[in-house]
Parts: sequence; structure tokens; C-alpha cells
Amino acid sequence: MARATKFVYSFGKGKAEGRGDQKVLLGGKGAGLAEMTNIGLPVPGGFTITTEACEAYYRQNKKWPAGLEGQVREAIRKLERTCRKKLGDPKNPLLISVRSGAAMSMPGMMETILNLGMNDESVEGLARVSGNRRFALDAYRRFIMMYGATARGVPREQFDHEFDHLKNHFTRPRIGKPDGQKVLDTEVNEEELFRLITTFKELYQRHTGESFPQHPFDQLVGSINAVFNSWMADKAVTYRRVEKITGLNGTAVNVQQMVFGNMGDDSGTGVCFTRDPSTGENIYYGDLLINAQGEDVVAGVRTPIKLGELHHLMPDAYAQLEAVRIMLELHYKEMQDLEFTIEQGRLYMLQCRTGKRSPRAAFAIAVDQASKPLANRTEINRLVKKRFLPRKYAKEASKPVITRDEAILRLKGVDIERLFYPVIDPAFPRAELNQRKIANGINAVPGAACGQVYFSAERAEDAAARGERVILVRKETSPEDVGGMAVAKGILTATGGKTSHAAVVARGWGKCCIVGCEVLDINYEHRYLRVGERYVNEGHFLTLDGTDGEVFVGEVPLVQPEMPEEYKVFMSWCDDRRRLKVRTNADTPADARKAVEMGAEGIGLCRTEHMFFETEQRRLAMQEMIVADNVEARKRALDKLLPFQREDFVGIFEAMNGKPVTIRLIDPPLHEFLPRTTEDMERLCQYAGVSMDHVRHRSEQLHEANPMLGHRGCRLCVTYPEILDMQVRAIIEAAVQCQRQGVKVQPEIMIPLTIDPKELRLLTERTRQVADQILQDAGERLAYMVGTMIETPRAALLGDQIAGVAEFFSFGTNDLTQTTMALSRDDAGRFLPEYVDQSKSAVFAADPFQSLDTAGVGMLIDWAIQRGREARKVLKVGICGEHGGDPASVEFCHTVGMDYVSCSPYRVPIARLAAAKAAINDTPAKPTRKASRSKSKKKAPAKKGKKSARKRK
Amino acid sequence: MARATKFVYSFGKGKAEGRGDQKVLLGGKGAGLAEMTNIGLPVPGGFTITTEACEAYYRQNKKWPAGLEGQVREAIRKLERTCRKKLGDPKNPLLISVRSGAAMSMPGMMETILNLGMNDESVEGLARVSGNRRFALDAYRRFIMMYGATARGVPREQFDHEFDHLKNHFTRPRIGKPDGQKVLDTEVNEEELFRLITTFKELYQRHTGESFPQHPFDQLVGSINAVFNSWMADKAVTYRRVEKITGLNGTAVNVQQMVFGNMGDDSGTGVCFTRDPSTGENIYYGDLLINAQGEDVVAGVRTPIKLGELHHLMPDAYAQLEAVRIMLELHYKEMQDLEFTIEQGRLYMLQCRTGKRSPRAAFAIAVDQASKPLANRTEINRLVKKRFLPRKYAKEASKPVITRDEAILRLKGVDIERLFYPVIDPAFPRAELNQRKIANGINAVPGAACGQVYFSAERAEDAAARGERVILVRKETSPEDVGGMAVAKGILTATGGKTSHAAVVARGWGKCCIVGCEVLDINYEHRYLRVGERYVNEGHFLTLDGTDGEVFVGEVPLVQPEMPEEYKVFMSWCDDRRRLKVRTNADTPADARKAVEMGAEGIGLCRTEHMFFETEQRRLAMQEMIVADNVEARKRALDKLLPFQREDFVGIFEAMNGKPVTIRLIDPPLHEFLPRTTEDMERLCQYAGVSMDHVRHRSEQLHEANPMLGHRGCRLCVTYPEILDMQVRAIIEAAVQCQRQGVKVQPEIMIPLTIDPKELRLLTERTRQVADQILQDAGERLAYMVGTMIETPRAALLGDQIAGVAEFFSFGTNDLTQTTMALSRDDAGRFLPEYVDQSKSAVFAADPFQSLDTAGVGMLIDWAIQRGREARKVLKVGICGEHGGDPASVEFCHTVGMDYVSCSPYRVPIARLAAAKAAINDTPAKPTRKASRSKSKKKAPAKKGKKSARKRK
Repeated sequence: MARATKFVYSFGKGKAEGRGDQKVLLGGKGAGLAEMTNIGLPVPGGFTITTEACEAYYRQNKKWPAGLEGQVREAIRKLERTCRKKLGDPKNPLLISVRSGAAMSMPGMMETILNLGMNDESVEGLARVSGNRRFALDAYRRFIMMYGATARGVPREQFDHEFDHLKNHFTRPRIGKPDGQKVLDTEVNEEELFRLITTFKELYQRHTGESFPQHPFDQLVGSINAVFNSWMADKAVTYRRVEKITGLNGTAVNVQQMVFGNMGDDSGTGVCFTRDPSTGENIYYGDLLINAQGEDVVAGVRTPIKLGELHHLMPDAYAQLEAVRIMLELHYKEMQDLEFTIEQGRLYMLQCRTGKRSPRAAFAIAVDQASKPLANRTEINRLVKKRFLPRKYAKEASKPVITRDEAILRLKGVDIERLFYPVIDPAFPRAELNQRKIANGINAVPGAACGQVYFSAERAEDAAARGERVILVRKETSPEDVGGMAVAKGILTATGGKTSHAAVVARGWGKCCIVGCEVLDINYEHRYLRVGERYVNEGHFLTLDGTDGEVFVGEVPLVQPEMPEEYKVFMSWCDDRRRLKVRTNADTPADARKAVEMGAEGIGLCRTEHMFFETEQRRLAMQEMIVADNVEARKRALDKLLPFQREDFVGIFEAMNGKPVTIRLIDPPLHEFLPRTTEDMERLCQYAGVSMDHVRHRSEQLHEANPMLGHRGCRLCVTYPEILDMQVRAIIEAAVQCQRQGVKVQPEIMIPLTIDPKELRLLTERTRQVADQILQDAGERLAYMVGTMIETPRAALLGDQIAGVAEFFSFGTNDLTQTTMALSRDDAGRFLPEYVDQSKSAVFAADPFQSLDTAGVGMLIDWAIQRGREARKVLKVGICGEHGGDPASVEFCHTVGMDYVSCSPYRVPIARLAAAKAAINDTPAKPTRKASRSKSKKKAPAKKGKKSARKRK
Repeated sequence: MARATKFVYSFGKGKAEGRGDQKVLLGGKGAGLAEMTNIGLPVPGGFTITTEACEAYYRQNKKWPAGLEGQVREAIRKLERTCRKKLGDPKNPLLISVRSGAAMSMPGMMETILNLGMNDESVEGLARVSGNRRFALDAYRRFIMMYGATARGVPREQFDHEFDHLKNHFTRPRIGKPDGQKVLDTEVNEEELFRLITTFKELYQRHTGESFPQHPFDQLVGSINAVFNSWMADKAVTYRRVEKITGLNGTAVNVQQMVFGNMGDDSGTGVCFTRDPSTGENIYYGDLLINAQGEDVVAGVRTPIKLGELHHLMPDAYAQLEAVRIMLELHYKEMQDLEFTIEQGRLYMLQCRTGKRSPRAAFAIAVDQASKPLANRTEINRLVKKRFLPRKYAKEASKPVITRDEAILRLKGVDIERLFYPVIDPAFPRAELNQRKIANGINAVPGAACGQVYFSAERAEDAAARGERVILVRKETSPEDVGGMAVAKGILTATGGKTSHAAVVARGWGKCCIVGCEVLDINYEHRYLRVGERYVNEGHFLTLDGTDGEVFVGEVPLVQPEMPEEYKVFMSWCDDRRRLKVRTNADTPADARKAVEMGAEGIGLCRTEHMFFETEQRRLAMQEMIVADNVEARKRALDKLLPFQREDFVGIFEAMNGKPVTIRLIDPPLHEFLPRTTEDMERLCQYAGVSMDHVRHRSEQLHEANPMLGHRGCRLCVTYPEILDMQVRAIIEAAVQCQRQGVKVQPEIMIPLTIDPKELRLLTERTRQVADQILQDAGERLAYMVGTMIETPRAALLGDQIAGVAEFFSFGTNDLTQTTMALSRDDAGRFLPEYVDQSKSAVFAADPFQSLDTAGVGMLIDWAIQRGREARKVLKVGICGEHGGDPASVEFCHTVGMDYVSCSPYRVPIARLAAAKAAINDTPAKPTRKASRSKSKKKAPAKKGKKSARKRK
């Protein structure tokens, strides 16, 4: 097998053996070089040794696999022919670089060796050809150091030490400075460099017991091995472990002709973007240094010039760059970030990749690319005339680069998220930030927040009332904390996952939230938190970065991102394209209004129980109802709750003004509502006129081993139908009141946790009886619906029978996931992480509470919808779990034919985008005049997201 | 509609309009009378008014529906023609009885009126015809009283008072007694009776304002209405509510010619069984009273004679009865309990029904009926000759009455249960028992137990060691109580349902257990239990009846049922017939041996975790493992556990000697094993050398919101693979050890709570690695299997993928039910009762934790098996949940094609029977020569159990 394997892929002179999509085989860099070469960009020639070669090297105990040496020699010969230079040639030597390049970027982890091919003879050849002996000697010095350190393990500090010694030993006269000033790198002269080379070679020999290799192929073999070995270096292994990079077999090795930007004032090196990465504006944007090498740019010693100035200094080089820009955007259809070198007036492309951009730029670029041509005709014609731009690109360059569909497919939920949430001021020094960082938690809700810490909801509310910015810190939150959570700028908890109470509630508000921050030792009694030796007392400042889940002590400045004009345009495109409706989960009029603003087309889940916590009065009435020990007492307490609930529903109906509102009847187990502290219990005793013993007894009675599977959901209404009566009354009376005031109302009453059609029929009939009686008494007509949540496997399995009763299904995928997988989301934090990562060996690719488990839970959903629609053709179907705001899950919802998804207000735009993408992926793009480009067009979306790629298969 | 409805069904002279299967329409009694008439038995003529008439009566506000009166008049005329007597005839009056009869028996709840047709004239006619004026007067007196009280609400006590007055007022001379003795009922003479009639009529008039109706049809209308009205009488309504009888529309009314057993020494009345109900012996068994009416038999005043004596007194009547016996058993194919009256030498059958019998008789009868002829030829010929037995019965009477299949279909699980468990001595007076009864709980495990109460497992163990019989009483039990449970005669808990810890463990041992006895107020501190005002201190006696869930104070004598010879025969028939194998759930060698004795063919579930509680040493090592905070410490603790586990497995393998043993790896969450009391925690600290803080912290860390869905099952082995290593090592080393000693071993290692094929593959591979290494090192070969429990919906849904990894499936239907229905079995006790009853409106017909929810959970099981076998043809499939011992669930397991069921040892015979029934129901009976009787043959099993009836549809 070994003999037949192709390990080496050459590129150069407009032709490459590899392709851009061979990242796994050629690594990211190698694939990019091949791609750029194939497009026709001026890339220095060279070749890539495959990751398979690296794998084989390790399989054979660090021996090259058979065939590799021959292929490398052949590739070198080919390169020499192309460049018309030879490695080690004393007259005109070819110099090459050897760089690592894995399939995934591992910045700073892997090795690079430059200037390979230098030896005692070729250094003089380079001196002659470049006309710059100092340059040649410096290149040789650098090579010895890099090779020695990288390939043979000579300690880099020792080279540095020798160089420093030289610089400290000698002095130079300098204008305006006294003598004795240390010598700068650039001031070291040829003679000194020559001596330094001798010293470096001695150092090398001392350490390795061998003289420095003069034969270029020996140097190459050593360098390639150095790159192979760097793959398994401790730091690289650690990096991959930390970053959870798995499934890669090794690194590729890129061997490439060296080009030099430091060969005089007709040379230079630069980095640029094909557009302005902060505004997205369609202008060429970047910096370059004249007569400098890449390292100098990075070092930041000299001040670069703006790219535009190049136009005046080297008009042809600039024109070449402009042509490159057009070719790149036409090819990649994305703003590119590119590195280039100009060697004696000639442009070489070293690297290009899709560029990072600001949140607003992401929208600006997508909309601009999809609606305006890339360049104007005059400019195109000029570049074509100069032969920098091949004619075949001319026509396309004067049209929009991408379609609207492609624009939609490109942007992601996180791009939208970034528009809405404040972030830590990027100008704030990262080093200081790192010093302030005390903990990492689970990034439950993105955005940053800063404020004074409070450890109880009450004190948080007091502080907020005093005008303080507040961060609420709790071990975990419960419905009783909602008041404090509402006033907080950010929420931090020590336990819980992304679907814990804190996370779910905060997400509904779009409020920065970090959960499961397990290192926090929170002391409620003495009101401090501790991480190791660092203490934060109540009232002190904390800053949270909810996007990354980081916690910082003290105040860190935040900035609010700007909202670009293009956002609205872009979202309207999404709305035109999608089939799925997008609703919101909202429990209050304020939430409802916010959601409508975010584009919600209805409420998919209005939880009625949060309302009971809003004021003490409501809470007490609710608690009185729970501790009541007979129907009459319960009804009396419910009568107190009725006006509150009715009022809430009126507010919500008004906010939604005619849009459908799905209201779920009471769901949580009653013990969740009971007071916990002795103080609160006493208050309840006084309020309800019952004894402390009675309250305690009732609490004990209600305790459950597994509340998730306990007396909750519609089971409560089976046991206490009077609760249903009150809630239905509140809904229908509110609807009647609104209707009379001219507000349109579409209530959809939803019965939770159904497990059986008979159970559902019982409650549906009672609901209709109560509702119809009110309507009859009021003399009003109202088109309300009664449906159910599908959140147990049994309800899904009996979908046909359930649909015989229910007018709509709303999949409660949180609980459906819990039950289908026997996985408590409150407890899964302890072991689920061991199940979830991106690797092939992981059990799950994503947390099933964040992204729907389409294989298992999805099968139930699909089944229930199909069977349900068989039984009831017009069955309305939606989803109201946390998954309704997860893009991959939204796509699934589209695929199985749901009517809508519902998510928290701040995720509504994300769901709108995801729904549009789903519709696009579902409808193959119409054939257009651009059919010739269809191949690359298809590739683009496939690259953007795994999901859509999978879809196409 | 009304005019066309047939409300009245006549019967008499060998022909009936109704049929035996029309119970719903004609009530149980009416259908029985029709059936007996049709068979050709001598039944007094009459007619039945349907339950529909009663329903219509109520629908029309207590008015007779149109057509009813005409039909009743017509039926009376028909009856008069048949009897050649007329209602109210002064010469030869027809007397009739009017009796209620609903579709379900409601003993004592409904009304009866006898002797209807008596009036001032007909009484003399009856006197003449019967030649007994006192008899006639007494009959009239009784009728006035019954009619007055029942139809018109005259207080019965007032009639009694008048009669008592008469008896107290007059005296009779009596031999050997002084004068002034009170008069007995039977001593009241004609004149006194005549005066009493006048008094009764006056009483009637005083109360009703009307004179006593003399016209028989008026009497009849009043009596029919009285029966109709009794249907909605308070006591009847209450009875139906308490007994959960729903879905009935009303009572039928049976009007029938009176026959009199008190018309002289050629008359009599009796009750008998077609076999001996206590031994099952094929002999005629019963009592009769000469010259007496039914009431007299019930009153028990006079001593009856044995049925056999009738042979001498009235040979013909006896011969008729013998013929009846043969006809009844041939017809009903079951031992019958029958009531008859002989009126002046002529036999009349009043009622027959399938008779109650002792546990051993049930087996004896079934085996006898299926293997021996009903009667010998000589006797048959004699009866045929006398024309008492129609010739058509002669041939069949000399062959076995039923087939073996019919015998199998007839007996139920409870019949087997009754053979094994001690019961309260039936001779113990029920009245005293009632006085001693203090509570009713859930009958978790049948049988009775008596002993001294202890409220802690430790003290129970101590007491048992002193030789006391012990009843362990706990609020609830946990694995730590297992020692105390093991030594107890019976277990009583205040909370929990039939699948609570106490119930499951006790069932495994066949030990009397009552759970969920919520009225118990148990005080651990002061060691007493209280029910209302009754206290039982520790050390005092309690008696439990686990069959009915009743708790009695004090010592009540128990008896152990006898095991009939026929049991073995019967079970061997079952084993011949069934396809399903029956295994057992057993965790110890003792359980395993018991189960083999009960017929188990392997172990379907060996839980490894109970072993950890057996001794303190084991418990401490386990706890040390749990509190360990690194792999090494954990491994050290596991090393201590290894020899214990290995030893257990050796014992189990030896007990099963070659039968397959399925061993489940650790399943419960670790916190279940942790010490709870401070004392136990301290012991652990000392043992493991850790601090109290550490133990507390670890306990807190392990706490879970929903342990059922938490860190348990195979998730433990994903997190702590060293536990799996230890357990697999113990299993395989034990197997090797046994094999070397010549004991055959078939271990099946089972991975619990799988949710994904990748997860399962991970653990299966690790299992095989550990096992194969041990085998290789030992140089042994062993055919072991690795499979999984299917107990989450996701595992069932992905059955094909899971079967790609697992060699066998074992359905853990307890957890599968919990997750599919989102129903915690520990918490469901609070609301599930509202979901479960036999009525049509109930959500569930049976508790889904007792009888498998075939609609929902069953759908998943069926799906998983089908998909699993598609992926792996030879997939072995079984069930190991509590349902494996439930007959209806076993039938389901057969239907979906499982290979075996597994249940607790004491339920093994029940499962064997159920499996045989399932096989029979699955295979239509082969056509035999008896094809002409196939109709009734098919009806018999269908009547016995709903299940099989459903099956046939």
C-alpha cells in the first residue's frame, strides 16, 4: 500500500495537485495554498506533505513511510525547475520555508523553519543575487537558530544569549545619544553577523555533537521531522485536549519557496481585508510595511502604511492586489483576510482566509454582497486591460457576488446575538482582564454585565431600588428569586446547566447569565463568595461575560454594539424566505411587547405560574391555595388569584393584539410554590390563618422523590379541577374584556404533561364547559382553541389518539428530552459533559438540552406529528421548549412539518434566520444563468454549517 | 323507539327468550335463569324486565317507558298459561317473587318481594290447594310486610314490633319449661296469624293512607317500582361507589313463579356444590332442609341434612339433582354452586353459579375435569333411563369435561398464590377480626404474617436473633433496612406503592408486605405507631393480611394452605404448552435456589448492588469507594469489594448450575449507598480515614433533584469505569472458578440504562477487554454474553442501533414505564389512584406499574424488538421488570415475541401459567370431534379473563 500512496502534492505556476476541499489531507494551510494557486493567484511554488504521511511516520515509530523520500526529492526537483533556482546553489540558491499545517488551526503550537537551503556557500550566492550581503548573512543566522532550536532542540535562549552578548558588547555612535548605547538588531553589521554565524554553528555542534548540516536535503529532512514531531509535543497535545480537537491524524508539512519583502524599497509585506472588517464597507482595507518581512509586521516595531498609499508607491503592485481582491471575493464569496509579500515589485500571496469582522459588518457585508456589484466597470476594465484580472472574472465582478439565499445561509445565530448584547470593551487590556478573571462557568445567556454583588433576591431588589447596578449571585435560583433576577444586570449561579431555572428565566429576558460555576464557594450567611483565596464580599463589583462564561472581579467597561441598517433588510429577506412561523415564550406583557419588537408572530408558551411570584400578595394567595385542606378553602384562595391572572392575560392579549397566544395551565409541582424560610412560613400562617404545623405537614406531604415525574402538569388539574376552572375563567374573562375594547384575541389553552387521550378529554371537556359558560353568560363569541403539550414519550406515541382530542400540539422538548433520555437536566451536569463533545467517539455531538436529539426525541416528534395529522388534518403543531431558539433544532422543526417554533424574545430573530435557512436547504436553488458556477455555489453553504451539508446528503 | 323496544324476556318450560351471555341487559340473575331454562333444567317460569327498562324509568322521571306495561301484562298471561294458575285466583292462585338483579352482584343492596299475588281471597285458595292454612296465612303476612316496607316505605320495625307484641302477649305450654315462655315464630297459630294480617293491613293503611292493594297487578307494579327505586337508594349508590362499580345503567327485575320448600315432608330446600369445594373431590356436596324455605337455610335455626341422605328420603328428587349436576358441569364446565327447592317431590332450580372453592380444590377440580370422566357409565345410564338426564348428555358425561388447555385457561395467578402463602385461620371469628382491624394499606405481597412490631431494622434483627417473630414497621424502607426486612415475618410501611422498595424486595422473598398504609402515624423516637386513638408500642403484636392489605392488632392464628398433588400435574401441563421461558429475579444464592425450586429456568435479573448491603464490611467498602476523590483511592476500595462479589457470583452460578444468569452492573445512584445517620458517617470516617466534612461534602455533591433520571445506571461506569472493571472481573473470575469445579456457567452481563449505541459500545468493549484478558490469563474458554437493559424510551426507539451492539435486550419495564409516562413510581401514589379504576371513564384500567401499559410502553417494546431483530436475528429478548410476574403482561411478552420473562421467585409459577395461557390464546384450539360444542368451548375461556377475550377479537 505504502508504495502507491501519494504523500506529496505540488503547487506552483498556476497549477496545484491538491484542492481547497482537501483540508483533512493537506491541512488548512496546504489546502488554501492549493486553492489559491488553482484560482490563478501568484503563490510562491512548493509542495505539501500530507497528514497521512505524518500519521504513517508515527505508525512506523518516527520513520518516514516508504515512498515519501522519493516523492519529496521529486517535488524539490519540480520546484527547482519552476523557480529556476536550486537548493544550495552557490550562485542563485533556492530558499524554502517548512511550515506545519493541521486540518484545524492550532495557532502558535506548531513549528516553522524559514530560509532553508542556506549554507556556507549559498549564503554568498544569495548575497550576490540580492546585492545585499547583510541580508544574506542575517538570513543564514536566522536559519541556524531556527533549525537548531526546532529540529535539534538547541535551547533557543542560548542563541539569544549569544546575540545579546554581541549587541551588548559592541556599541555604535548614534545621533543625539551618548556613546555606549546598545546595538539594535538592525544595526549589527556584516562582520559581526559573520562572526555570529560561526558562534551559532559552534553552539549547534556543542549541543548536537554534529556540525551544522550543509547539505540542503539533510536540512529539509531534519525540518520536516521537526514539524512531524511538533504534532506530539506536549504543548500541542495539551492544546488539542483543552480545545477538544480530536479525530485528526497528524499535521501536514508545507514546503514553499521563500519570498522576501525586505529586499529593498520595491519590496514589502502586508496584511489586508477585502472589506472594512469593522463596518463592512466595500473598500480595500489593510496595512503594509515597505522593505520588511512578515515577522516585522507582527513585532509592531515599525509603523505600517495604509494599503491605499501603496497605490502611489507601487501602482502595479497595488493593481495586482486589487485584482486579487476581486478574484478572492468572487471565488470565496466572502470577505477575505489575506497576507502578501512584494518582492522587488512582484506580488506573492502567502495566505488567505475568511476574515473576522464586527457584528455589524457581518450584516453589512452579507447585504452588500447580495445586492450590489463587487466593483465598478471602469476599475474592472482597467485591471483586465493590465492583465492582472483574467477576463473571465470581469462579468461576474460587476454583479452581486452572492444571492439572497446565500446571504441568509452565511449568517448565524451568534451573529445576531452579537448585535444585541453588550460586550466587554474590546479596548480594555486583555492582560488586565486575565488578571481579574476568577472563574469560568457555563455561558447560559450571552452579553456582558457589571455590577455590585448581592447574594439574596431581596437585597438585590433593595440595592436596585437605590439605583445600584446589581449582579445576583446564588447557588441556584428558584421561582422565589425572580424579583431579584429581574432587577439584576447579570445572574451568576454555582450550579445548574443551560436549562436550569436561572438560565431559562434569564434567557427569556436576554439577560447576561452564567450558571454552573462550580468553583464558587458561596456563603449566604456571611455574604461572600470565595474562589480559592480570592474573596468577593456583598456590595463589591463583579463583571460577567455571559458569551464566554467568564467571571471577573471589579468593574470592567462595557460597550453596546451598534445596530447596522442592513439588519432590518437582512431579516426581511429571512421573513420572505421562511415557512415556519416564529412565536415567543413570554409570561408578561413586557416580555410580549419585547418579543413583538423582535419579530414574534404570537406567543407559543405563556407560563401562568411565574405570575404567582410577582408580588407577595399573589404568592401568599397561591400558597394559601396549596395549604388548603378542602375544596372550599382552595376555592376561596383561588378566588383571590383570579383577578390577578385575568389582569395579566388582559395585558398580554393587548400586547399581542390579535396574534395567537398559547397559555399553558399550571405546570410545576405545588411544593415549588411553598415558602422555605421560617419567616416566610410564618407570614403564610398569618395570612391564611393556619398553624405552622399545618404548613410543615403540608410541605412534607408534597415532598417528592422525583418531582420531574411527579404530581405536576395536568395531573394537578385532575386532582384539583378547581385550579383549572380558575385559570380558564381568567383567560376567557380577559379575552372577553379585551374583545369588548376592540382588541382582537386568539387564545389557545394548553394542557401540559398529557399522557393519555382520556385524561386529556376529561380536562378539555371541563375547559370547554367553563369557557363556554362564561361566553354564553357574556353573550360573546370567541374562537379559542384547546390543545396540549406533547412532552412525554407516551403522548407522542399515542399522537393519533391525542390529536383526536387536542386541536394543537406544542412539543415541550425540554421535558420530552428528559423523559426520552431518562436525563434530569438539573442533575445531568455531573456526567453529561463526558457524553458530549465534537469528537467522533463522543456519544453526543451536542448537549441534547440545547440542540434537539433528532435521532431519539426527534423520532418521537416526527411520529407524533405524522400520526396526529392522520387523525386531525388541521392539527396546528409547534415547539415551545428551549430548542425553539436553537438553529439546528429549528431546521428539524421545519423538516418535520411544524407550523411554528417558539423561543425566548431575544432568540426570535435567531429563529427567524434559522427558519429561513431551513426553507432554503429544503428547496434546491433555482437554476439561474450562473449555472456554470453552481458547483462552487453549492460548496459555500456546505462549508458554513455542518447542518446544511448533512441535509444535502 | 320506545314502542319497538323489547323490555321483557320470558322463560319457562325449557325455553327462554334471553341468553346466558346477556348479563348487561338481563342482569346476572336474569341471564342465569334464562341459561338454566335453555339447558333444560327445571326452573320455575317467569320473566325478566331489562336493565334498559330501569334506565328508561329513570330517564323519564320514574315513569314506566311506553310498552313496558303491555309487555309485563303479556308475560304474566304467558306465565299463567304455563303454570296453569292465575294471579289472585281464589281457588288456585299463582304466587310470584319479584327480585332485583344487576349485571354485577351487589349482595344485600337490592330488594326482593316474595309471595306476590296474595290477597284476602287468594290466601284461602292457597290454604286449600296446599292443605295448609297456617302456611297460606304466614305467606300473606310476610307479603304484606315485605311489600309495605319495600314498596311503600312502612318502617319494617313497626311490623316486627307488632309481631313481637303478639309473641310476647301470648304464651304456650311447653314441655319441661315453666309457663309464660315467649312464643316462637313457628308456634304462632292460624288465628293469631289471621289477626296479625289485619293488624299489618291497618299499619299499612295508617302509613300510606291507602288500603293494602288487593289487585295483584297493582301489587306487581308497586313491587317492580320498588326494585327500580332500590337501584338509586343511598346504600346501593354508596356500595357502587365504594366498590367502584360504574358503567351500569340500572337493575333488571326478575318476576318468577314462587315454589315452596315448606309444603310438607316431600318438600325442602337446599344449597349444594357439584364437587367438594374444599378438596375438589368429584362428589356431590351440600345440605338441605326438609320442609323449609330458603330463608330458613340462611337463618341457620334448624340443622340441615347432608345431600346424600336425600337419596334415601326422596330417591327421585335426588336422581333429578344428580342429572342436574351432570348437565350443569357439562354446560358450564366448572364446579357449580346451586340453590334448589323441592316442592312436593318436584325439583326446581333457583340459581346456579360457578362455586367458590379452596385453593387446593381449584387445582384438583381443573386436573380432574381435564383427565377423568364426570360420572361412571352405570350411573349415567340409570339417569338416562329415568329420563332425568337427556340422552344427548350421556356420551359427553363419560369423558373428561374439559381439555388441558381449558384447565390451564381457567386457573389464575391468584389461585397459585393462594397455595403458597399462609392465611388467617378461616375459623377465626370474622367479628373479632373486624374489631382488631386498625388499618388498610396497599396489598403489596400476599399472605398473612403475625409477630412483634419493631420500628428499626437493627432492633428487628436483634429480636429475630432472640427468636421472636418480627413485623418490621417503617415509614418507608431503604436498602439499609434489608437486613431487618430479611428476618421479618411481615413488612408494613406507611408510604410507597406496589413498586416501592419495600414491596419489590419483599416480593422477591414472597414475604407478606403491606405498603402505603397512610393512616399510620409512626413515631420512631418513642417507638410506637398510632392510628386514631389506638397505639401499638414496639414489641407488641400485629397481624398483617398481605392479600387484602389489612392490619390487625394482636395475635391472630394463621394457617398454611395444603399443597395438592394436582399442582405438579397442572404445572407440567403449563410447561408443555408454553413457548416463553420463565426466569427469575434473584440476587443471592438462596433466592436462586428457591426460584429453581419454583421452576425458574434461569436468572433474568441479578442485581449486584444489594450485595453491598449484606454486611457492614461490604457496606463500608462500598461507601469508601464512593467518598474516594481519586481513581487510585476508588480502586483500592473496589479491590476490597472484589472478593465479596466474586463469592456471591460463585454461589449464584452453583445454584443455577448451567442455567443462564443475567447479571446487571451497578445501577442505583451512588448516594443511595451513603450513610445517613451521624453514627454511620463516623464509622465510615474511621474506616476510610477521611474527615466528616469530606463525607458531608461528598453527600451534598451527590444529591440529586431527580435521582431517577440522574447519575445512575451505565452512566456510573462511564464516569467511573473502574467499577465496571471490578464487577466484570468478579463475574468472570467466579465463572472460571465454577467451570474448573465442573459447574456449568452461562453468564450474561447486562449494562443498565443505556440511551445510545455509542455509549453501549464503549462499555461493551471495556467489558469484553476485561473479561477476555482474565480468560486468556486463566487459559479458560467461556461463552458469556454482553447485552443491555432497555429501560429508556430512547434505547427502545434506537432498538436497531442498540442491537447492533447488544447480544440481548432485557426490558426494564419499571423504569421504562416511569420514563415513558413521566411517572415517578415513588410519587405516583398521590395522584395515580385517580387515574386507575375499572370504570370506562378511568384513564387506566390497571396500575401501569403492575400491569404493563401495552398501548404506550408496549408500543415501544414492540418497536424495539422488531427493529432489534432486524439488526440482529438471534437477539435474545426478555423482560425483568415487575411486570414479568403479571399475567396480562406475560401474555403481552408472548405476543411481541420475547424469549423469556423474569420475575421474583414466588411469581415464577404464576408466570409459567400465564405463559401457557398466552400460548393457548395464540394458537386456536385444534378442531376435534367435539366441534359441535366449540361454541360453548370458546365462550368458557373468554369468560374467565378479559385478556383472552380481547385477544380473540
